[in-house]
Formats: sequence, structure tokens, C-alpha cells
Amino acid sequence: MKGTNKVFIAKSIDGFIADKNGGIDWLHTVPNPNGDDMGYSEFMKDIDALVMGRHTFETVRNFDMDWPYQIPVFVLSESLNFLPSELKDKVFLVKGSSEEVLTQIHDRGYHKLCIDGGKTIQNFLRSNRIDELVLTTIPVVLGNGIPLFSELPKSLKFDLVKSKVYLSQISQQHYRKV
Amino acid sequence: MKGTNKVFIAKSIDGFIADKNGGIDWLHTVPNPNGDDMGYSEFMKDIDALVMGRHTFETVRNFDMDWPYQIPVFVLSESLNFLPSELKDKVFLVKGSSEEVLTQIHDRGYHKLCIDGGKTIQNFLRSNRIDELVLTTIPVVLGNGIPLFSELPKSLKFDLVKSKVYLSQISQQHYRKV
Repeated sequence: MKGTNKVFIAKSIDGFIADKNGGIDWLHTVPNPNGDDMGYSEFMKDIDALVMGRHTFETVRNFDMDWPYQIPVFVLSESLNFLPSELKDKVFLVKGSSEEVLTQIHDRGYHKLCIDGGKTIQNFLRSNRIDELVLTTIPVVLGNGIPLFSELPKSLKFDLVKSKVYLSQISQQHYRKV
Repeated sequence: MKGTNKVFIAKSIDGFIADKNGGIDWLHTVPNPNGDDMGYSEFMKDIDALVMGRHTFETVRNFDMDWPYQIPVFVLSESLNFLPSELKDKVFLVKGSSEEVLTQIHDRGYHKLCIDGGKTIQNFLRSNRIDELVLTTIPVVLGNGIPLFSELPKSLKFDLVKSKVYLSQISQQHYRKV
């Protein structure tokens, strides 16, 4: 199966991507006066579609702003059957295993994917379908919340491609599957 | 309460310090022909005693080598009542909460402590008694094992003091409590 699946996500030192109420205020504890995007727009230049779960989709949709993505977003959901009309041509529902979902997305011509959201990333890791991980660590130990990682059937080796510090406080590691 | 409590530990990308059988072979997946200690001996220069749980103590004792520490080791255990005679003057049993244990160790004149072992580190984090964390990340997602972190009553903020890469593959972050 051709194509690459990449993750770009922020986490706490102890590996949470949101607090126990789903909150992400703690992501902004480090002052960022010039709005440094910590490599996100550079990362997205090489992405042609996003894949996310229903929960992440609804979180993004509830942000107090217009729909933020210019590229197609594929939402994995077994429960959603239709989408708001204003997102027609922008958001597409897909169902099935990560393999089936990838086949559907590749068949539509999208091969360089950003995989987003805890559950979706975990599913793709379980089937060893994540090629690159860009992990941005906020210097806080949250103590509980929504974890980035979950149990895997076998361990996965990565190469460290790059390690960088943003805003003197936030370290980012870029890993590529061995 | 004066004194500093520091942690120097290796972990997987997903935050495990040992695999589910307690194994740490995966720590050595990155070739290290010259035996780079990744800052450990430099770190230990500013430590005057170690604190670890019974499990970590027994793990170290079962390594096929002489007792490795030149400085006193305080072993936290509610179940152990005596220690092997060859470790007299090297290892000391302590009991109680992390506060009580710290008081006992400080009273003996040791204030710059290295806190070791998953459970002990977790206990000290829960009582907000960890001043510095040096986390060395091996580029593997283990998928399960013994976690470094556990649930906390409240989140803990740290400053990133330093971020460094060893052997082109292993990133290390040094955090200090805010």
C-alpha cells in the first residue's frame, strides 16, 4: 500500500493530548507572542488530506472560527451518517478499519495523509500504518487526560530524524518508521 | 524542606521505562560503540544519595555485576526488614511517605538525591517533590510495559533547561520544576 501517514501533535511530558475534560488550554502555557506555528505549516505543505475521528472533527468544528482546512478532511465514524451542508466538498465520511479507510482515501487520489486525534492515531499505530511522528512536548506533567498512545500488539521502532526546541521551552522530535 | 530530588531515566516514546516483563533490552537498540553514558556520570556528580523502591533495588542487585553505587542507596520498602550483609554501609532501608522518607534521609546529611524506579518517581511526583527530570527517549513505541508516569492530583509545570541528542537517535530533555 503506497502513501505516507504522518502525525503532527502536541502532548504533555506524560503523553496526554488533552486534559480529562478534553481541554487544551495547557497547550498555551508557554508564551508565544509571535504565533510561532512550530513547524506546522511547513509540515502541512507535504500533506494532501487529513484523517480524523468524529471526536476530533467535532472539537475542530466547535472552535469559534471558520472551518480551518483547505485540503479534504476524511472523518472516520461508524455513527455519523451525514455532515453539515456547509462542509460539503470539504469533509467526507469514511468507515471501516484503518486498512479499508486508507484504500478508500487512496482510491480518491490522496496519498500523503495527516492522521489526527487520539483514537485514530492509536488505531493506525496498532496496524503499523504510521510512517512519521512529529511530537511537540509542552513542559507540563498533566497527571491525567486523553492519552496519545495505547496498547500495541508489538513494539514499533522509529528513527529520530530531527530534534528541535521552540520558544526555548517546547521540544519537538520528528520520528520516521524504521 | 531543603534539598533537591532529581530523576535521570530512560523511557520509550510512549513513556514506558521497562517492557511488560520488566525487561530493558530495548534500551540498547541504538548502537553505542563507545559506551556514551548520555550525561549520566555528569548528572551523578551533583548527587549524594539514591532513593529507590524495593523492585528497582532487586533489579539492580540481580544484574550480573558488583553493587554499582559508591554513594548511599536508600531503599523504600514496607516489606523488607533486613538487607544482605555485604551491602551494610551501602544500602539503607527507609519506610513511610515520601515526606517522611525525605526527612529521614536529610537528617542523615544527604540532600542532593537521585530518585529512581517507576513507583518511587510516581510517589514523589504525586507529592510534588521532584525538582528536576532528565528524560532520555529511546526511539521505540513499546506499546505496553511499566509506565514512568501515573495519575496526579494536579498538573506540574516544568521549565525546559536543555534538549540534546545522543548517538543521532536518542533525545534527552532536562526539565526543572517551575
